[in-house]
Amino acid sequence: MVEETPETKSRSSDSQDDHVVFVGDKPFMNYVTGVVMQFTTHSAKESVIKARGKFISKAVDIAEVATKRFLEGEVTIKNISVNSEEFKNKEGKDVRVSTIELTLTKN
Amino acid sequence: MVEETPETKSRSSDSQDDHVVFVGDKPFMNYVTGVVMQFTTHSAKESVIKARGKFISKAVDIAEVATKRFLEGEVTIKNISVNSEEFKNKEGKDVRVSTIELTLTKN
Repeated sequence: MVEETPETKSRSSDSQDDHVVFVGDKPFMNYVTGVVMQFTTHSAKESVIKARGKFISKAVDIAEVATKRFLEGEVTIKNISVNSEEFKNKEGKDVRVSTIELTLTKN
Repeated sequence: MVEETPETKSRSSDSQDDHVVFVGDKPFMNYVTGVVMQFTTHSAKESVIKARGKFISKAVDIAEVATKRFLEGEVTIKNISVNSEEFKNKEGKDVRVSTIELTLTKN
């Protein structure tokens, strides 16, 4: 299993899966700031918050705080999807981990 | 603040917000079984998994395991919505808690 790094990705400036924020164990406000800056500094029309496992709750909190406190009336949660990935852990045991993607979009 | 009890509610048998499962700190499989039984034993067409705060990740896991392992091909996640509630905690401080609702529906 490859752990996703909790950092902001901006691969290029015009494809739709730009502006992805992967949620991990960094401080909560780092991610909120990361999301808010996608819209303010990087002029994104859309930003996607992705998380897996125990970080899913944190991802929802980040989306709620970004849209309701910092970008109220400007950005809303357009879509939410969940999924799960199965893989073998170090002991060779099958493990399932849930994932979430919250798509935020400019009004 | 009123803590939601982690139990299965089935108020009546024909209104749409029947078959609600509130996720709390009971064992994971209790909730999975609760959801699966909504469809198998109680012949529900729809079941809603609700959670708040740190239980959101668990709610997503429950939805994934119920739909992909136990009810594969029979039930899918039709809708996901998130929200947040603000309230004052014991110390009178404003606190925000995120909520999620995952609606599962028979195919």
